Amino acid sequence: MARIAESTVRRLSHYYRVLEEVAAEGKRMISSRRLAEREGITSAQVRKDLSYFGSFGRRGLGYNVAHLSAEIRAILGLDHRWRVAVVGAGNIGTALLAYRGFEKQGFDIVAVFDQDRARAGQRIGGVEVREVSSLAAVAARAGVDIGVIATPPEAAQQVVDTLVGAGVRGILNFAPRKLFVPPEVTLRTVDMAMELESLSFALAQARGVRRRTPA
Amino acid sequence: MARIAESTVRRLSHYYRVLEEVAAEGKRMISSRRLAEREGITSAQVRKDLSYFGSFGRRGLGYNVAHLSAEIRAILGLDHRWRVAVVGAGNIGTALLAYRGFEKQGFDIVAVFDQDRARAGQRIGGVEVREVSSLAAVAARAGVDIGVIATPPEAAQQVVDTLVGAGVRGILNFAPRKLFVPPEVTLRTVDMAMELESLSFALAQARGVRRRTPA
Repeated sequence: MARIAESTVRRLSHYYRVLEEVAAEGKRMISSRRLAEREGITSAQVRKDLSYFGSFGRRGLGYNVAHLSAEIRAILGLDHRWRVAVVGAGNIGTALLAYRGFEKQGFDIVAVFDQDRARAGQRIGGVEVREVSSLAAVAARAGVDIGVIATPPEAAQQVVDTLVGAGVRGILNFAPRKLFVPPEVTLRTVDMAMELESLSFALAQARGVRRRTPA
Repeated sequence: MARIAESTVRRLSHYYRVLEEVAAEGKRMISSRRLAEREGITSAQVRKDLSYFGSFGRRGLGYNVAHLSAEIRAILGLDHRWRVAVVGAGNIGTALLAYRGFEKQGFDIVAVFDQDRARAGQRIGGVEVREVSSLAAVAARAGVDIGVIATPPEAAQQVVDTLVGAGVRGILNFAPRKLFVPPEVTLRTVDMAMELESLSFALAQARGVRRRTPA
């Protein structure tokens, strides 16, 4: 199978959101131009991305919204329910648990862990907080697919190792630390500093702070 | 000026992190291969990315760490200090304020706002919480460059409009809602559902949940 780049997967997520909007508007068909609406995506890119997965569109007619939406759902694995454990019941963990939208998209938060024994037994967003010492046993027994790292940075790698040992194959990391996983495990990091850098880049370019100009 | 794709900027942020690591190890030179170390980046991609900004490398010798690091710092606008306002002192806002690493990278959180009057006057991470009614006046007076949206989704667009009206030109959005900004303003959204989708894609591929296989 061809390796699909992370950037392609992000665009598929974007197309999926546009398709949901268009479906809510009651439209049956959509053009590659509308799918491309976000800045930086061209219609040609849309057609190329979708061509990896089969030929969904018809020239001049566009794509059938319901059909394309179902196909992208399946490609993104959203026709499946995934079991998620959140490790760290601090601000980030609590924010994730408070957001109920994940459930609608197929992500069930089945467990939350914290190092603080005093928090064990509390409920956040309907999920009971457990002591992190039970992580390996609970993750294996509950068949957790995805672990979310919302711990302090110094604890993050050990939590990842425990999760991987318990059979978890997807890690979403919010800790500002570089983590290592074996090749069979997929790691994504939400790096808030990198997001700010992306803005400072744009602001610096706009202000002409840069001395040299890219060719 | 050539438009630099968001994905290129992300790779520059990545190279910058690798350069900081390598500098900490005391190395003077770095190869494009080491810069490419993250999965999905090739050495050819590194050379192409860096070629936009001038020719830093020497064939067979690699790149001078201190020089390339300083150049990327300047490109990313990190040789400049940026004034950041956080709107929403809930879990996400508090997590951002608690993380002091931003300051080191040139981002000074100068103000935090919340809708809850009872929170006004409290300090989070050393910054005083203000009532959101003062947002326009304070943002303009303090010369805020970047606004972080950590509000409930239904309040997000109004906050963005207020910030833009006050001269803010960069928005980092954590609210799960599509926001609109004028063309002179740069918007980045941290979409946690999209991160989870990127993982479910990888897990579904690995499990062979997909019926059809990309060509």
